[in-house]
Amino acid sequence: MTRFIDVDVHERAALEDLLPYLDPVWHKYITQYGWIPDRFLPYSQPTAGGLDRADAKPDGVRPGGSDLGLLREQLLDEYDVEQAILTGWLNASSMQEGWTEFKTALMSAYNDWQLEHWVEQDERLFGSVHVNAWDPEAAAREIDRMASHPRIVQVMLYIGDQAFGAPRYHPIFEAAARHDLVVGIHHSENSPTALGRHRYFVEWHTLVPQVFMSQAVSLIFNGVFDRFPDLRVILIEGGFTYVPHLIWTADQQYKELRHEVPWVKRTPGRIIREQLRFASQPTVEMTGAQLETLIGQMGSDELVCFSTDYPHWDFDSPHEALPPGLPEDLTRKIFLDNARATYRRLPVPVA
Amino acid sequence: MTRFIDVDVHERAALEDLLPYLDPVWHKYITQYGWIPDRFLPYSQPTAGGLDRADAKPDGVRPGGSDLGLLREQLLDEYDVEQAILTGWLNASSMQEGWTEFKTALMSAYNDWQLEHWVEQDERLFGSVHVNAWDPEAAAREIDRMASHPRIVQVMLYIGDQAFGAPRYHPIFEAAARHDLVVGIHHSENSPTALGRHRYFVEWHTLVPQVFMSQAVSLIFNGVFDRFPDLRVILIEGGFTYVPHLIWTADQQYKELRHEVPWVKRTPGRIIREQLRFASQPTVEMTGAQLETLIGQMGSDELVCFSTDYPHWDFDSPHEALPPGLPEDLTRKIFLDNARATYRRLPVPVA
Repeated sequence: MTRFIDVDVHERAALEDLLPYLDPVWHKYITQYGWIPDRFLPYSQPTAGGLDRADAKPDGVRPGGSDLGLLREQLLDEYDVEQAILTGWLNASSMQEGWTEFKTALMSAYNDWQLEHWVEQDERLFGSVHVNAWDPEAAAREIDRMASHPRIVQVMLYIGDQAFGAPRYHPIFEAAARHDLVVGIHHSENSPTALGRHRYFVEWHTLVPQVFMSQAVSLIFNGVFDRFPDLRVILIEGGFTYVPHLIWTADQQYKELRHEVPWVKRTPGRIIREQLRFASQPTVEMTGAQLETLIGQMGSDELVCFSTDYPHWDFDSPHEALPPGLPEDLTRKIFLDNARATYRRLPVPVA
Repeated sequence: MTRFIDVDVHERAALEDLLPYLDPVWHKYITQYGWIPDRFLPYSQPTAGGLDRADAKPDGVRPGGSDLGLLREQLLDEYDVEQAILTGWLNASSMQEGWTEFKTALMSAYNDWQLEHWVEQDERLFGSVHVNAWDPEAAAREIDRMASHPRIVQVMLYIGDQAFGAPRYHPIFEAAARHDLVVGIHHSENSPTALGRHRYFVEWHTLVPQVFMSQAVSLIFNGVFDRFPDLRVILIEGGFTYVPHLIWTADQQYKELRHEVPWVKRTPGRIIREQLRFASQPTVEMTGAQLETLIGQMGSDELVCFSTDYPHWDFDSPHEALPPGLPEDLTRKIFLDNARATYRRLPVPVA
């Protein structure tokens, strides 16, 4: 099969791992206060490994993604991955606003830990700058700091209840565009839905794509893509079956109501095709013909980038995620070319 | 063109109109307290008539839908409507829980007013029972009371922040099924989205379909359709371009997580095809071939029922809402047959 770029691979730190990278003034939050990231998900996850693949937990206990050796064995070597983009854990943007200064410092520590323990340990791995979007100016400074590392290719924003199109977030997008970094907007355990906390995990998990539509609509109609025409944003871990609906609906509303947002100079569909991308996982089972039709409805076959979401419970195997019988050209775009065109800082490996 | 059944036509009362139908104990809420329905929409609507068609406001001042003569002129006669289903205004289910007893009484008054001033004034008009879902037992009693009128065909639930799949709402669905009434779940000014109140009306309006997906998912996974296999539900004023995405996603999650909801005995896609319907408005511009493809992705051409949403600003004209070149059989199903199969209490007009 085609080698591939995996645009969603989660590495994970224990909080204690970050202490050597964290200004001592903040240590007490971890060593004394027992700080833990707030998670609003009320469900017992109905899977054997919780939100992880059971077999991806080192010693059967530690969280998936804590061990580089296991990542190599289960992903990088198992599937002959060409390059993988790390998307991390513990993103402050998805949490509540409290202790903002601590979280900003923690993100810097996380970024340095990520470089040393992952990115610089395997030439196939590339990193993301984690930032605290509650403090956009500090986030932009952190992006500037990390962008000097050639193996950082992305700025990560995990989804909480902030709509990222608001002007206060402009410094983040501006900094990303300045350094040719993709902005990855990623699902989180705090992803909201229109009717809040449904009664069952299967309900919430079915509705996760909503907040990706919300973020796309927020960025588009608030003019973020018009302001930063070189910006590329990728929506990660929401799948892509919603994209035709999003384009149809947003284009129709734009036709009827664009006088309300005169700074939006292109149709939403055109903005999406030019500047927005979608990581494939979680895929749904469909035939090759159905997938070709769906991609045809998007108006471009360059929008979907393959991702496994290793080590999570609903990991997509590259052997099974795409239906058999898909044209070779389209397969290659989804597995390789679309990610390469999106992440322009990724080096082309020497054969 | 084909005659049609319009499944979404809004009639509207002034609060004072309801006093003769309301127990005097509640009059003071209207005559002294200045009660008004709570509306959480923060936008100045960027259209000449607000949320109404400017030309549908009697005298240019009163709200659209307040005048039967104008409704006849602009809709029933203008387009040769065969039958129209009234969907009303002022539905307590979309508001906050406060003053529940008053709202329950107000819904009864509204229903009686609707019968006298609309349903019994024109043989083309059929009515809905408005209920206050915050008091499901009282709502069921109101459904029992109104169902004896042969021209009532539906129970109306406007969308607020309640997910209607929860067991406390079972009495409403049970009463509807008992009387062969369709349950219409309708968009409201209080329709929530995953990221709350976006900055612009065009954002919120683009995202309105989210809460319909949320309601469908809530009803499906909480087993409402399994418990009431004769129940039909129609989602009104959210369009239908999201339906393939909803089916794909819900079916995939069902495959992976159905052990969490063992009372759900059919795939979500099958449940949708057997028991859920979608009013067409607001339609989006697409070619006939695109619409046929989209309907093919739903797995049934019996799911979409035509609606105009008269008298609102984004009224869909039956002359323009469907693309030219659609097969005659499909056009007839959307305009007529699908609604007739759904609303089984609608009489077939004598030729």
